[in-house]
Amino acid sequence: MSRKSTAFVTVDFENPGKQSGFIHIPHSPHEDAWGTTRIPIAVVKNGDGPTAIIQGGNHGDEYEGPIVLGEMARELDPTRVQGRVILLPAINIAAVEAGRRTSPVDGLNMNRTFPGDPAGSITQQTSAFVNDVIFPLGDAFLDLHSGGSSLDILPSGIIEPAPDPEHHKRNAAAVLAFDAPLTVVVDNLGERRTSTAASVAAGLTTVGTEMGGGGTVSLEALKICRRGAQNVLSHLGILERSETQPERTEGRDRPVLTIPGPPGYVFASANGVFEGYHPLGTEVRAGQEAGRVHHLGDPFRPPETLRYGANGILYGRRQPGRVVTGNCCLVVATPYEGELP
Amino acid sequence: MSRKSTAFVTVDFENPGKQSGFIHIPHSPHEDAWGTTRIPIAVVKNGDGPTAIIQGGNHGDEYEGPIVLGEMARELDPTRVQGRVILLPAINIAAVEAGRRTSPVDGLNMNRTFPGDPAGSITQQTSAFVNDVIFPLGDAFLDLHSGGSSLDILPSGIIEPAPDPEHHKRNAAAVLAFDAPLTVVVDNLGERRTSTAASVAAGLTTVGTEMGGGGTVSLEALKICRRGAQNVLSHLGILERSETQPERTEGRDRPVLTIPGPPGYVFASANGVFEGYHPLGTEVRAGQEAGRVHHLGDPFRPPETLRYGANGILYGRRQPGRVVTGNCCLVVATPYEGELP
Amino acid sequence: MSRKSTAFVTVDFENPGKQSGFIHIPHSPHEDAWGTTRIPIAVVKNGDGPTAIIQGGNHGDEYEGPIVLGEMARELDPTRVQGRVILLPAINIAAVEAGRRTSPVDGLNMNRTFPGDPAGSITQQTSAFVNDVIFPLGDAFLDLHSGGSSLDILPSGIIEPAPDPEHHKRNAAAVLAFDAPLTVVVDNLGERRTSTAASVAAGLTTVGTEMGGGGTVSLEALKICRRGAQNVLSHLGILERSETQPERTEGRDRPVLTIPGPPGYVFASANGVFEGYHPLGTEVRAGQEAGRVHHLGDPFRPPETLRYGANGILYGRRQPGRVVTGNCCLVVATPYEGELP
Amino acid sequence: MSRKSTAFVTVDFENPGKQSGFIHIPHSPHEDAWGTTRIPIAVVKNGDGPTAIIQGGNHGDEYEGPIVLGEMARELDPTRVQGRVILLPAINIAAVEAGRRTSPVDGLNMNRTFPGDPAGSITQQTSAFVNDVIFPLGDAFLDLHSGGSSLDILPSGIIEPAPDPEHHKRNAAAVLAFDAPLTVVVDNLGERRTSTAASVAAGLTTVGTEMGGGGTVSLEALKICRRGAQNVLSHLGILERSETQPERTEGRDRPVLTIPGPPGYVFASANGVFEGYHPLGTEVRAGQEAGRVHHLGDPFRPPETLRYGANGILYGRRQPGRVVTGNCCLVVATPYEGELP
Amino acid sequence: MSRKSTAFVTVDFENPGKQSGFIHIPHSPHEDAWGTTRIPIAVVKNGDGPTAIIQGGNHGDEYEGPIVLGEMARELDPTRVQGRVILLPAINIAAVEAGRRTSPVDGLNMNRTFPGDPAGSITQQTSAFVNDVIFPLGDAFLDLHSGGSSLDILPSGIIEPAPDPEHHKRNAAAVLAFDAPLTVVVDNLGERRTSTAASVAAGLTTVGTEMGGGGTVSLEALKICRRGAQNVLSHLGILERSETQPERTEGRDRPVLTIPGPPGYVFASANGVFEGYHPLGTEVRAGQEAGRVHHLGDPFRPPETLRYGANGILYGRRQPGRVVTGNCCLVVATPYEGELP
Amino acid sequence: MSRKSTAFVTVDFENPGKQSGFIHIPHSPHEDAWGTTRIPIAVVKNGDGPTAIIQGGNHGDEYEGPIVLGEMARELDPTRVQGRVILLPAINIAAVEAGRRTSPVDGLNMNRTFPGDPAGSITQQTSAFVNDVIFPLGDAFLDLHSGGSSLDILPSGIIEPAPDPEHHKRNAAAVLAFDAPLTVVVDNLGERRTSTAASVAAGLTTVGTEMGGGGTVSLEALKICRRGAQNVLSHLGILERSETQPERTEGRDRPVLTIPGPPGYVFASANGVFEGYHPLGTEVRAGQEAGRVHHLGDPFRPPETLRYGANGILYGRRQPGRVVTGNCCLVVATPYEGELP
Repeated sequence: MSRKSTAFVTVDFENPGKQSGFIHIPHSPHEDAWGTTRIPIAVVKNGDGPTAIIQGGNHGDEYEGPIVLGEMARELDPTRVQGRVILLPAINIAAVEAGRRTSPVDGLNMNRTFPGDPAGSITQQTSAFVNDVIFPLGDAFLDLHSGGSSLDILPSGIIEPAPDPEHHKRNAAAVLAFDAPLTVVVDNLGERRTSTAASVAAGLTTVGTEMGGGGTVSLEALKICRRGAQNVLSHLGILERSETQPERTEGRDRPVLTIPGPPGYVFASANGVFEGYHPLGTEVRAGQEAGRVHHLGDPFRPPETLRYGANGILYGRRQPGRVVTGNCCLVVATPYEGELP
Repeated sequence: MSRKSTAFVTVDFENPGKQSGFIHIPHSPHEDAWGTTRIPIAVVKNGDGPTAIIQGGNHGDEYEGPIVLGEMARELDPTRVQGRVILLPAINIAAVEAGRRTSPVDGLNMNRTFPGDPAGSITQQTSAFVNDVIFPLGDAFLDLHSGGSSLDILPSGIIEPAPDPEHHKRNAAAVLAFDAPLTVVVDNLGERRTSTAASVAAGLTTVGTEMGGGGTVSLEALKICRRGAQNVLSHLGILERSETQPERTEGRDRPVLTIPGPPGYVFASANGVFEGYHPLGTEVRAGQEAGRVHHLGDPFRPPETLRYGANGILYGRRQPGRVVTGNCCLVVATPYEGELP
Repeated sequence: MSRKSTAFVTVDFENPGKQSGFIHIPHSPHEDAWGTTRIPIAVVKNGDGPTAIIQGGNHGDEYEGPIVLGEMARELDPTRVQGRVILLPAINIAAVEAGRRTSPVDGLNMNRTFPGDPAGSITQQTSAFVNDVIFPLGDAFLDLHSGGSSLDILPSGIIEPAPDPEHHKRNAAAVLAFDAPLTVVVDNLGERRTSTAASVAAGLTTVGTEMGGGGTVSLEALKICRRGAQNVLSHLGILERSETQPERTEGRDRPVLTIPGPPGYVFASANGVFEGYHPLGTEVRAGQEAGRVHHLGDPFRPPETLRYGANGILYGRRQPGRVVTGNCCLVVATPYEGELP
Repeated sequence: MSRKSTAFVTVDFENPGKQSGFIHIPHSPHEDAWGTTRIPIAVVKNGDGPTAIIQGGNHGDEYEGPIVLGEMARELDPTRVQGRVILLPAINIAAVEAGRRTSPVDGLNMNRTFPGDPAGSITQQTSAFVNDVIFPLGDAFLDLHSGGSSLDILPSGIIEPAPDPEHHKRNAAAVLAFDAPLTVVVDNLGERRTSTAASVAAGLTTVGTEMGGGGTVSLEALKICRRGAQNVLSHLGILERSETQPERTEGRDRPVLTIPGPPGYVFASANGVFEGYHPLGTEVRAGQEAGRVHHLGDPFRPPETLRYGANGILYGRRQPGRVVTGNCCLVVATPYEGELP
Repeated sequence: MSRKSTAFVTVDFENPGKQSGFIHIPHSPHEDAWGTTRIPIAVVKNGDGPTAIIQGGNHGDEYEGPIVLGEMARELDPTRVQGRVILLPAINIAAVEAGRRTSPVDGLNMNRTFPGDPAGSITQQTSAFVNDVIFPLGDAFLDLHSGGSSLDILPSGIIEPAPDPEHHKRNAAAVLAFDAPLTVVVDNLGERRTSTAASVAAGLTTVGTEMGGGGTVSLEALKICRRGAQNVLSHLGILERSETQPERTEGRDRPVLTIPGPPGYVFASANGVFEGYHPLGTEVRAGQEAGRVHHLGDPFRPPETLRYGANGILYGRRQPGRVVTGNCCLVVATPYEGELP
Repeated sequence: MSRKSTAFVTVDFENPGKQSGFIHIPHSPHEDAWGTTRIPIAVVKNGDGPTAIIQGGNHGDEYEGPIVLGEMARELDPTRVQGRVILLPAINIAAVEAGRRTSPVDGLNMNRTFPGDPAGSITQQTSAFVNDVIFPLGDAFLDLHSGGSSLDILPSGIIEPAPDPEHHKRNAAAVLAFDAPLTVVVDNLGERRTSTAASVAAGLTTVGTEMGGGGTVSLEALKICRRGAQNVLSHLGILERSETQPERTEGRDRPVLTIPGPPGYVFASANGVFEGYHPLGTEVRAGQEAGRVHHLGDPFRPPETLRYGANGILYGRRQPGRVVTGNCCLVVATPYEGELP
């Protein structure tokens, strides 16, 4: 079937200067027969140079990206730009408005819907618009994520692996330029439905991030995110370094890690409340006690002990105490052994 | 995949006389393992002549169509018919029973599901049945819509554009025969998933309507709808004009309008309560103040003003005061410049 | 139990000039352990004179009152006031934010909770605050209602009957001063849990209204409401008539009606869709056919006819076509025979 | 699109002995960004022989299968096995945990999702895993169903028809070996999205069951199910008959029935409460009164009588009294006339 | 506070003959500002004699009572009556329409709301109407219950204990006259909020029942219920025995049991699926294994065994397999040792 | 009305040694007609001495209390006790099982229901049981709270003010003995419906706590809580200090703070996402910028700045980024000036 869409947009991607507007995706639920889902977009264009697409709000409960992109949309001076910056501060708008990872409209996790479907539900139509209309305009794609409501993660730049080694190095260089305290290669067990996987498939230089989480706004993560977005634009040659922009440390001597597949995850083995034994950043080893699941409603029944499945450092932990079987309680990351730029 | 369906029907489309029965679509939710979704259908057949399919209840909160088709199902005298009339008074039965635009079973807007999927959810199976089984039986298709819960629309016949000019004129002639106070060419920004778009794709002479709305039953719209359905059947040569059928005015000198794409819509720019400034039918111009969105919970904050985006007449307005960003508040229609029969 | 409350307010009722602020009612749900429900309030005080309390948003889907009171809160010039005006533009704030008659927080209809309970749920605490803290400050109370989502009502001033004849006349005089096209004595079958009943019990001069409805914002009702609120303040001697304030017609020769108890209501006798036969304002008589309930899902079953139970004029009608058994479809009002000022 | 999946499994299908573990299907909802849906699996392998896959919990409110497979997972002695038994005691784990026919996660009936979709929702991913990963490992598939919450069914073995006559006989022989009191050929009106239809499509010897129901755990059905699962394994040559295993009656002289298409079902003709007139097993004939639908809220309206549409024995009846239009109230089965082994 | 109500009724309790009508309780939710909750009532009056009140639908998923009372409302010949019969076939109308034990409107179990509250929610207003308006009209009260969705109970007449020994014997005599296969004294652990407790408090001769259950309509329970209602009316001298009325066995030699307080109940000790070991009517003893709770999602964990807490016969069992901690799985009844008439 | 309850308990408060059991509160919802809500309780009694009641799970998303009390219930050696310890590790059991502040059964915040109502909903019945049955058994009451899902709070002991100065000092001494890093006097704006207010009203020595929060399990808070509970028991003379019990620092030189009424709270002024500017423990002053509310869906609109209302230290902050108007974003505590022991 054709991927023709009924969506329209109120900015002109070829106009110079700064424009603020909206992507409108017609949406016809009970409450609004002829209305649209309205997604904010800003385009800043000046001179010649590459196009960077920066996206926030793919998950609606990861706040640092949308906050930083809103600041850029309000404050970025077009004369500092060489090329084009396309800002999508709240791409999954219904999830952002709700403060939820997933869209309250169709229940979907946008980051499991790429390349989308223009005849599908709203989230599928949105990812189709990004994939079909926005990606072809760009040279690079920066997708700003945080840990969200359920995870607390060490702030880090994320390398989405590319099958082509040159492409992979290009991605890694851009992520290292972001200059997060940590860099992690994450392939989500091979998941192809994420926006970064789709961006890689489209050939764009691709940068991901994971910043704090716990469903809150982290002061530290905000700072990393603000600086990192500017760092990547500078790396791409789009943005002159401003005086107020802190020195980029290039991250060259910072650790690069990866998640060693299934053994990297500690999953809840029962419904209950999880008590983890170690703070983030702790070095742990496979087989070590990691925490326990308490049966609070039946306190006379002893808790169940969980153990790590890999050696490494504790990279992420579940924020909510309440768990159900299968929930990810802890994530361990190990040194990345692949090639880097 | 094959489009074979497990649905079955309790009428015989080839039998003469009047039959009342049901389309059964097997449905297996928690509450009913081996039951069906039961959709009413009536077939009235006599002599030789074309087949008209008349559908109501595509949206479950648009009542005039289902009421008029129920009357026809109970009262239409088969001896007045030359050809065949297939009546589907409540095609989206779960939505009709709930008085909702969309199906409470799968959340879908039936008019965004064509051509349907016989292996999909109930609404998708229903539109597949209409598309695969009913449309091939017909020469003409009349889909009776009203404004629904969210919109109040000037009663009008709707021309679904056909790519083939002859087909387009055939459609327009049938819509003008319906003889609504107004005729509007509506392409829904190019939407292909509606039943009228699918009917056009299937080659049928196609007539749409929009009648009143606000989620209520309009006395005036009922009258237009009753007369219009008979007018179309007469136009097709299926129905002799009855004595009680009012003179058809042919609508030839009535205005034909169209919606000028995105500028024809005024969308809410914030969550709040919308106060529109003009009644339906008012002539308006682009840039004019159209209304404002009030922040009722924070009354010390001034309301936001919305403006029209096109010249024309005010064709539709939102019924519920409550709006969220992106909701369609107002619709402007402009004179149609295309060819007509 | 003591009626001591933990609520607090950020305005000082004794300060001269105009103040905007909030009533805070501590509220401790899952999402917000130590927060409050924040209700807007404005106080305009100048010179000596009586205190009028004007309330809107008792029901959250009746928009004209909140819109007009927001305008007054933003625009009312304190130097025009002699006495005090206390404005509560959105008293049932959670319902107003949701556009619902009833509170989404506790499901209660605020107008069935007076005199409230300071140890109860949020709506009960709110009505207790109005009853215990606000009413003792006032001489008169104006409660601005519209028909809401379910009813379309002829715009009218409402007299809440007072057991004391002098109080009753005082109420009636103030309602007539409001100068709505129609005045109706409504006792809600003796209901004592409304805010106007509580205001009467507290001895205040009490004015109610019903304005349009259908869940929409009515241009006509807005005008009546704007003018009426000013008329009542003038009648009380609090507000000088402004030049822009239209001539008050005093309503003396306008009809005063009442609802004749149970026979005044036509209730749905089945689940279905109601088609009413007459527009508002029609004169009707007991026993006459009033409309019918259609079984849209089973169109081969004939509809059920409903009949009026009283002579009078058609004063209100249900907006949504969809009905369930017991729903109020129509309301008939008859001439009021009691004494008037 | 490729059917590559991100799922992983913690057992090794080639290892001898008994292993207990889990299929993990990555699932990323709001509550758990990086977790999995965890589905129990046991593999018992010994010596040489065919592989049987036994599944329970396809519907989450059919308890006998999961109970019996849990017993087998805990108690089956690997040394009694010749070949391999793959046990999936709770394949639709979210539905099993909820005691619902359909998954509370995505609302889908797993038995209408085959062959599944590895890029779809959780239920679609699960059926894709069964279809793509598990079926290719097997020679035979036994899917243990009961009547569930909505139906009470005479305990029976179910033959899923195969287009190839040899395959059909192979299936029938295995079902008869299960040795239920009754054997029924059920094609679900040609439904291809069930696990047994997919198993047949994959060439496996396929056995279905229906056991009691009413949402309860039946002592009798448990016994039939326990013995039947062992009987099928013995029939396949995988399991030696144990001393405690009761004599298999082979079911050769037991009746084999089928459901005669649409006339075999009695559907509710109205919303209400269904009173059936006959107990299961009664011989009935087409046209006979089968029961009636009561209008309990309007008791002065007479109930509606339903009639049987086919001759045969009463094979199933609806458990909940409450019905909505289209619900399956009764099922009649007739003698099967096809060939049997 | 006064117990004055706004409810009204469309029958006249003093008129002779048979009247069908409704109790209307004004109800003002979002969907229906001025409507009512409509509860069916029938009054059959003739000659002189006592007044019996018969109620069904106190719980909306116990169907035999409402079915039998609907039959009586349609078929009872007034000339057979000496005195008055007030029939309330569906007192908790919203629960009856929903087929739920509790009201979907306010979530309340009507049988935990007596003596009700005329200023409370709908269920509280309904029980207040029964308590304040209906009970004072009566001499005897028969409340027809079944096991409902969650319990399967041996059909039995229920004696609600009265503190006054004469009253107690009067109740017991009437219950024995009902002539159920079993009679049980049930005090619900001293619960005073049931309708039968309120009826006893009001001095009425009081008869309760428990009939089958499992959320279904039982043919056997219907027969017992039909006959029992007539038996009680005959016992009270209101109804002549009809020719078609079967011989009353007086129940004199039938067992009278009671529930021995907390030890009579077996409660689930964990979330899971309950497998009971014995059919209803089995003789059991304290300490004996009663069944087990299975962990279907974690089948490698052994199930938990539950044991009986009292000697007696198995009187009730949970219908749904799914249990959560604290659910009543089994009920044991022991011989009643109190005095009987 | 009498406060007689139908609840029963399976431990004997007078037995020596350690008992584990349950409070059963009969509960009769749709899903379970004759079951109970089962609340764990442990009683440890030895020798002579006072009775301490320790409660956790008043709010179901505050995990440290329930975890520590479960440990005590499993591990406390009765021979170490002089007197009696009554442990209620999960008093609001339904909320604990759900990980929610409020009960999912009746929506109530248990800590706004005291002194409860034995004829009310489950939460009201539970608080009535604590108030009427448990409190009279005790000399001291320790209620273990944490910040919960919505707040992150500096771990602290809480003094509930008592009107009697001696009682107040007794409370303060016990709280200081708990030995949290911080001690705060909290009167919740005068709220009387908390369990600690009810405990004070009952004359018990009363200790509250607030520990961490954010809906997670805090390692640090767990340690403080474990030690504190033992410290209080030692302070009361019930528990010998164990060798493993760390030295009590007595907290005498630790700061004692209080919340200075409404100015201590910073409330959200709009719906949006809150970015706070300072970490917990920061010294702040009235008028200082505290943070801002971002409009993420409309990023071109500038955020709103919030300011502190009091001088002091930042004591608590909202965890979730998402706020709605009125949410508590920040809490400031100031030095307590009242008398201390």
